[in-house]
Amino acid sequence: MNSITLLQPEKIVFGENMINELGNDAILEGSKRILFLVATPILKAVEAAVKSLQDKNKEVNLVEYKFVGEPTFAQFNQLLNEHQAFNPDCVIGVGGGSVLDCAKLLAALINSTQKLEDVVGIGFLKGRNIKLICVPTTSGTGSEVSPNAILLNEDTQAKSGIISPFLVPDACYLDPVLTVSLPPKLTAETGIDALSHCIEAYTNKFAHPLVDTYALKGIQLISENLLKAYKNGNDIEARSALLVGSMYGGLCLGPVNTSAVHALSYGLGGKFHIAHGLSNAILMPEVLRFNLSANPKRHAEIARALGITWNGSDENIAALGIEKIEALSEACGIPQKLSEIGITKEVLPELADIAMKVTRLLKNNPREVTRKDAINIYKKLL
Amino acid sequence: MNSITLLQPEKIVFGENMINELGNDAILEGSKRILFLVATPILKAVEAAVKSLQDKNKEVNLVEYKFVGEPTFAQFNQLLNEHQAFNPDCVIGVGGGSVLDCAKLLAALINSTQKLEDVVGIGFLKGRNIKLICVPTTSGTGSEVSPNAILLNEDTQAKSGIISPFLVPDACYLDPVLTVSLPPKLTAETGIDALSHCIEAYTNKFAHPLVDTYALKGIQLISENLLKAYKNGNDIEARSALLVGSMYGGLCLGPVNTSAVHALSYGLGGKFHIAHGLSNAILMPEVLRFNLSANPKRHAEIARALGITWNGSDENIAALGIEKIEALSEACGIPQKLSEIGITKEVLPELADIAMKVTRLLKNNPREVTRKDAINIYKKLL
Repeated sequence: MNSITLLQPEKIVFGENMINELGNDAILEGSKRILFLVATPILKAVEAAVKSLQDKNKEVNLVEYKFVGEPTFAQFNQLLNEHQAFNPDCVIGVGGGSVLDCAKLLAALINSTQKLEDVVGIGFLKGRNIKLICVPTTSGTGSEVSPNAILLNEDTQAKSGIISPFLVPDACYLDPVLTVSLPPKLTAETGIDALSHCIEAYTNKFAHPLVDTYALKGIQLISENLLKAYKNGNDIEARSALLVGSMYGGLCLGPVNTSAVHALSYGLGGKFHIAHGLSNAILMPEVLRFNLSANPKRHAEIARALGITWNGSDENIAALGIEKIEALSEACGIPQKLSEIGITKEVLPELADIAMKVTRLLKNNPREVTRKDAINIYKKLL
Repeated sequence: MNSITLLQPEKIVFGENMINELGNDAILEGSKRILFLVATPILKAVEAAVKSLQDKNKEVNLVEYKFVGEPTFAQFNQLLNEHQAFNPDCVIGVGGGSVLDCAKLLAALINSTQKLEDVVGIGFLKGRNIKLICVPTTSGTGSEVSPNAILLNEDTQAKSGIISPFLVPDACYLDPVLTVSLPPKLTAETGIDALSHCIEAYTNKFAHPLVDTYALKGIQLISENLLKAYKNGNDIEARSALLVGSMYGGLCLGPVNTSAVHALSYGLGGKFHIAHGLSNAILMPEVLRFNLSANPKRHAEIARALGITWNGSDENIAALGIEKIEALSEACGIPQKLSEIGITKEVLPELADIAMKVTRLLKNNPREVTRKDAINIYKKLL
């Protein structure tokens, strides 16, 4: 078994309405000044937690996160400038991936000698002195347990990863009640994104048994529950399973990470502002078909975790698994073609150029993806 | 899904010879004075790690752990008194469960206002200011990731648990090379102990899906690899799998914990000084037979994880699983009867009395165990 280092929050709290217990967390005992970065739809849901912190004589700076889409460098720096003076000793982020990523970077860069520009890439952060708690309100990003944060560089229109052990939160709270109000469309897109984290970790060139455990369980939980939560957002058991599955996907991101689905998706997000989950959802089946021959056994094991019980060759089982992903995605109302989201043949070379630059993910792919391969994959999806 | 809180080290490092990388761990960056508590057979294996710490101008107090058997209150207090003056800012424990438990308690109680007697039980520790890294050299205890430490109260001859979130290490290093020299007998006993952690978590009254993931994977890894490691201690893949399986067992201990196997084992350990793994190994099949009717489905799922592929009723599959555990235990040279380890009919009432006091574990058992039930279980093993 190869060497591996797993990083995770020292505390993972799961449960309905557990957000209301946040104020009693021992992790916050010594904290006096708490920056609470909260997505707009969730403001009301954090009221009890904020009050319980204030009742303990902690100063709470409740900041509404208002940006739409992938946060840009400028937007993050605006947050940093506005809230640096508050001098928090703890940052709590409550929201989707964008909110959590910003909260993570705020905790790392407030009162730091480093600037955002210094830390873009892998391993440049020198430390973090501020406590960090993340509370996801979508079941997709896995950011609540991962060492990753992604921002959009508005100059280059490229998504840029900040990857560091110091971005792993101290604690995360998984409260399925907070995900109930997520609209079906976002439920579907973020759910398929979480599924892609698990799948791309399992087919990864650097897949590892200690991460496989999370990946397979995540695939099972998400595939069994996504349609249920899409059809009935109030299905708390389905919401719970998705939240746990998404967390497992997040635990795959640090030690193994994603591969070509995410790399090919970069340009769609950065250049065309297609939602991250949506672009991954459209790309995943075709990328898996491209990858299958590199490791039929692992692709068949994914199909098994997706619920395929048919017996046959690994290739055939794996192909059924890919069809199942397509069917799930379609049943959740996700477009199946790039043409449906406005992508035309002319932009494919540019998309491929952007993808080719994401070497940190492409190197993980079980099969080499050339620029030509990338264009071919995009073409099949027109 | 019920609420649950998972606590774990923020960093889990796995790999052959990773002990040699310990000195470079970012967690130790600010540390100046390191107390290294090391089991005698491992002293040589930590030399490189100690040297790399000394090369970084850290003061290392290398303490050989010499006690035999379950450490007593007096023995722990002796360690505490002898090494308190060194005033470490980090404790590293390298050894089996006893060494790790003492290292955990040293990190919590050195320069604390609390004494050992103040913290026995659940949740009495007020904090821990000293960093803590645990490096297991057996695949059994799971202490490297758990919030538990167990000492023997020499006055009452009772094993006493100290359970606290503050006993979860900051990091653990799982280096299978350190377990290679473990003799077959200890490999077998500690391995079955680890298996029992997973099994007792899965059949637990408070079993939880987030812990089930670890439990089932642990059962699979241990059952597939224990005999291999028993027969050939140098089988590094088997050693690796056992170490990971044992860690999964440890991750079950905090949020769910064990039940009647461990409770019934308390007197055997405390009063008769039978090794913890050995007493659990002897008791487990009979306790599982007693418990089976309370949850045939879960017991059958354990059998599946143990490799039983036969189709039939849950009861029958579960029974085959129990037989498989017995066969594995026997193949590993573990006595199958209490009479083989010197237990006679006369002491059973006393053993049952001790077991009945372990309510913190008995309450977890899927079926109520009365004093009479306990005596009956012991009797069947005479």
